[in-house]
Amino acid sequence: MIPNEWLVEAQQRLEGKVLRTPRIHDRVASIFLKLENLQITGSFKIRGALNRILTLSEDERARVVTASAGNHGLGVAYGIRLAGGKAVIFVSDHAVPQKVEAIRALGGEIREVRGGYGEAEATAIRFAEAMNGTFISPYDDPQVIAGQATVGFELVDQLEGNPIRSVIVPVGGGGLLAGIGLAMKEAGIEVKLIGVNPEESKFFYSQYTHEIQAGVEDRPTLADGLAGAINPAAITIPILKNLGASIITIEESAIREAIHTLWNEYGQKVEGSAAIALAAISQDPSIEKPATVILTGGNIQQEVFTGLVGDSKKKQ
Amino acid sequence: MIPNEWLVEAQQRLEGKVLRTPRIHDRVASIFLKLENLQITGSFKIRGALNRILTLSEDERARVVTASAGNHGLGVAYGIRLAGGKAVIFVSDHAVPQKVEAIRALGGEIREVRGGYGEAEATAIRFAEAMNGTFISPYDDPQVIAGQATVGFELVDQLEGNPIRSVIVPVGGGGLLAGIGLAMKEAGIEVKLIGVNPEESKFFYSQYTHEIQAGVEDRPTLADGLAGAINPAAITIPILKNLGASIITIEESAIREAIHTLWNEYGQKVEGSAAIALAAISQDPSIEKPATVILTGGNIQQEVFTGLVGDSKKKQ
Repeated sequence: MIPNEWLVEAQQRLEGKVLRTPRIHDRVASIFLKLENLQITGSFKIRGALNRILTLSEDERARVVTASAGNHGLGVAYGIRLAGGKAVIFVSDHAVPQKVEAIRALGGEIREVRGGYGEAEATAIRFAEAMNGTFISPYDDPQVIAGQATVGFELVDQLEGNPIRSVIVPVGGGGLLAGIGLAMKEAGIEVKLIGVNPEESKFFYSQYTHEIQAGVEDRPTLADGLAGAINPAAITIPILKNLGASIITIEESAIREAIHTLWNEYGQKVEGSAAIALAAISQDPSIEKPATVILTGGNIQQEVFTGLVGDSKKKQ
Repeated sequence: MIPNEWLVEAQQRLEGKVLRTPRIHDRVASIFLKLENLQITGSFKIRGALNRILTLSEDERARVVTASAGNHGLGVAYGIRLAGGKAVIFVSDHAVPQKVEAIRALGGEIREVRGGYGEAEATAIRFAEAMNGTFISPYDDPQVIAGQATVGFELVDQLEGNPIRSVIVPVGGGGLLAGIGLAMKEAGIEVKLIGVNPEESKFFYSQYTHEIQAGVEDRPTLADGLAGAINPAAITIPILKNLGASIITIEESAIREAIHTLWNEYGQKVEGSAAIALAAISQDPSIEKPATVILTGGNIQQEVFTGLVGDSKKKQ
């Protein structure tokens, strides 16, 4: 559904513009961690956002509209700053304040919408239509997915011949999991693709497994970047079904524990939306190893982080 | 020379005010890395600076003067912001601009001095005397050393029973090495203390081993935080001699390589002044393992860092 040339072009387009992030190898646990928390803007989202922006005309870049839980908005704001243009970014009124401030600092124009991510997205789409702007979805866009696929190609390079059985990826709308899956397929590597959704806001899981989001509650979660309703017709869904991906859900306590472990054992500061992928490994014994875990972002609220790791003395 | 109670009091004083940074364990290489690059202000310097500031009266805090290559200045500015008061910070006119800007952003008043760190220090001391202020040396101060000793006590806790033979510590004026050495001794742990000085600016090495700094050149080094002349009568020198520490020097190419390795293998962004400690391990086969390496700071200039790790693809 996404031409292979688009995947190749995205790699060329982003070369030298995003960081090739390190992957660390825990031989004892038999896992690789891909550190997109160290990426420019603090998350992988810059890849898809910038790739999409670089395919736009100057005229289109002058009227970019998006909706975001924070990190995609940061990516769009950074991309527009780099390429020139203007971006209006719709966020939920309970988005993480530090992410919203960081978008503003990059020059993005913020519009707050009452409700969750789903409400912000619906409002952004209507706004883009009304002003004849270009709406850049964080997940439901082939060029965004092609940009995220560059994580997958880097992963393949960085395996350096080590075999892997699974790739564990946090899922909000599924763009990164779809991109990585397509890159793996293109590289001829057979792996089990596992997407992880927070139990407290399992819209993607419900859509993917039961083809319905009605009745799913949008409760507060440490994985704020993965929360909220998604487009039920998103292209990520057929792509991921075609790739045979499975989606699992994870409880808050396991996310909290994983943030702690990533700090204490690996020296990585990650947000809940990223730690959830490591949490999956400890919660689901059926996940086959060696496994690669994508640490998608590091933009955790300072007070939340200090609250979580501050008691590390007691825990050890 | 520093009362043991001061070491204990520093721990209590800093509790909850600085981060207990993680240590990661590379079992294959038999090294522990202590991640002070993840400390508040991006370096361990906040520990000594804040401990010293918290022993000052309100009146003294109103007239604090210091000299710094950057990180100690950041620590002092942060500490004064927390405790109240005013700090004037003397820096070399070739200090790293991003560090100087960060000090200003924390409210520190910057005075640039032509020359190296040694010139900035001499000017700061004269200024403090003239205005009846309190000069806080980055290394030649028992309460600063007591603050740095908290790194040592954390290390001891974090060994969790694993034995170590050596501790490798970057050295500018020797405050951190002295503090860690005193903490180790207090905890009854016998280790070899190894201080690392850049070959391009080996003032501490020359003073420690030949009791002379005359003729030492102050050449540009990636380890900018360790460069420049020191007080030949600094208390760190007898303390370290008493503890039996050795000092070695490291070339630029090894520092560069270590910055690269820390990013690619461990996912840590560190400055040259910190990477030099890991460089010592690869350069000096006589260093006994298991060894603990102190990664003292992460405040590397973004352009320098991108220049160094940007070619990671070719290197792998």
